[in-house]
Amino acid sequence: MTRRLLLATRNTKKLNELRRILDAALGKSAVELVGLDDVPSYPATRETGLTFAENALAKARDGARYTGLPTVADDSGLAVDALSGMPGVFSARWAGRHDDDEANLRLLLAQLADVPDEHLGAAFVCAAAVVFPADPATGEAGWEHVLEERMRGRLTRQPRGEGGFGYDPIFVAEGHTRTNAELTPEEKDAISHRGKAFRALASVLAERLQ
Amino acid sequence: MTRRLLLATRNTKKLNELRRILDAALGKSAVELVGLDDVPSYPATRETGLTFAENALAKARDGARYTGLPTVADDSGLAVDALSGMPGVFSARWAGRHDDDEANLRLLLAQLADVPDEHLGAAFVCAAAVVFPADPATGEAGWEHVLEERMRGRLTRQPRGEGGFGYDPIFVAEGHTRTNAELTPEEKDAISHRGKAFRALASVLAERLQ
Repeated sequence: MTRRLLLATRNTKKLNELRRILDAALGKSAVELVGLDDVPSYPATRETGLTFAENALAKARDGARYTGLPTVADDSGLAVDALSGMPGVFSARWAGRHDDDEANLRLLLAQLADVPDEHLGAAFVCAAAVVFPADPATGEAGWEHVLEERMRGRLTRQPRGEGGFGYDPIFVAEGHTRTNAELTPEEKDAISHRGKAFRALASVLAERLQ
Repeated sequence: MTRRLLLATRNTKKLNELRRILDAALGKSAVELVGLDDVPSYPATRETGLTFAENALAKARDGARYTGLPTVADDSGLAVDALSGMPGVFSARWAGRHDDDEANLRLLLAQLADVPDEHLGAAFVCAAAVVFPADPATGEAGWEHVLEERMRGRLTRQPRGEGGFGYDPIFVAEGHTRTNAELTPEEKDAISHRGKAFRALASVLAERLQ
């Protein structure tokens, strides 16, 4: 039986990434993945949480409540050691506006200008949540799960590479020499916080959907 | 005997504040306080530490090494709960340039725009350090002390008041309703992180200089 799942995002890249991972984990067409672009007049979730897990859960709960579908959501960002884990949940609005990747990256580099090289450690973090709404028809109770995965690495002083997005051009993962923006999408998926979190979530879903 | 002390700052306000506090604690003219403007071609200390204490100590050590005088220095900033203690040691260069108070404050407010009111707690923190250089003439060993004081409070959504500097216009101290920038200098000194740290340091110095 094909189950419908909502991924609470308008980001087509994320949608395709999760689709690939779920197909690999659950078998092709076990799950039909719906994005927010397929849900008419969907109200945006305000990301007011102070942790990735809070924000991921809030987005998944909103999606489940609005559509009645089991809903997957994620929240992710860059945690810089020298900034006590910031930009963190503020990663996409670090320079004060939402989703201005270049301004965010430029501000972060300027803030770290006087920080010695040995303190440029950082991690990309991703929380992934899934919420199954209660089903009054069958009496089935609602169910939630949230998990967090990370990719450790170091920041560079200058952006390099054209791939990826966000802070990818200034992040070199542990054991690598190229920035995330210089990796192929497949190389990045294999080691990334989001890749790991979605794969872990796929295992959770596989068990739940059996 | 009047002892000469260097305060490693070019900030006349800090110099006068420490002078007032030391006079009150040690008796008038027990100490002659010298500022960096009185020290020719003094090299700037790079603030590369990740804690206020590290930076205060680095500045005091540089001053003692360069002048041979016992040297007092401070480092201070605003630690916002929702930002895991940031801007912290980056307070004066949060927007990427040094000492652009208005840009720093504007950026901070923009970053916190979606943070709920109940998470706007913050503290001003001040580390004060003193370094006595070793004295080869008397064989006296060098000596250092560093301490940290804080003022708890909450951030406002809009700046208010014309006094103070830095983030004062958006900070309301615990038990107060006016922002720091709406307090008189005397009111602020009495409760401020820097006032408390300099008074604590004066006690330490009083004991040492006896």
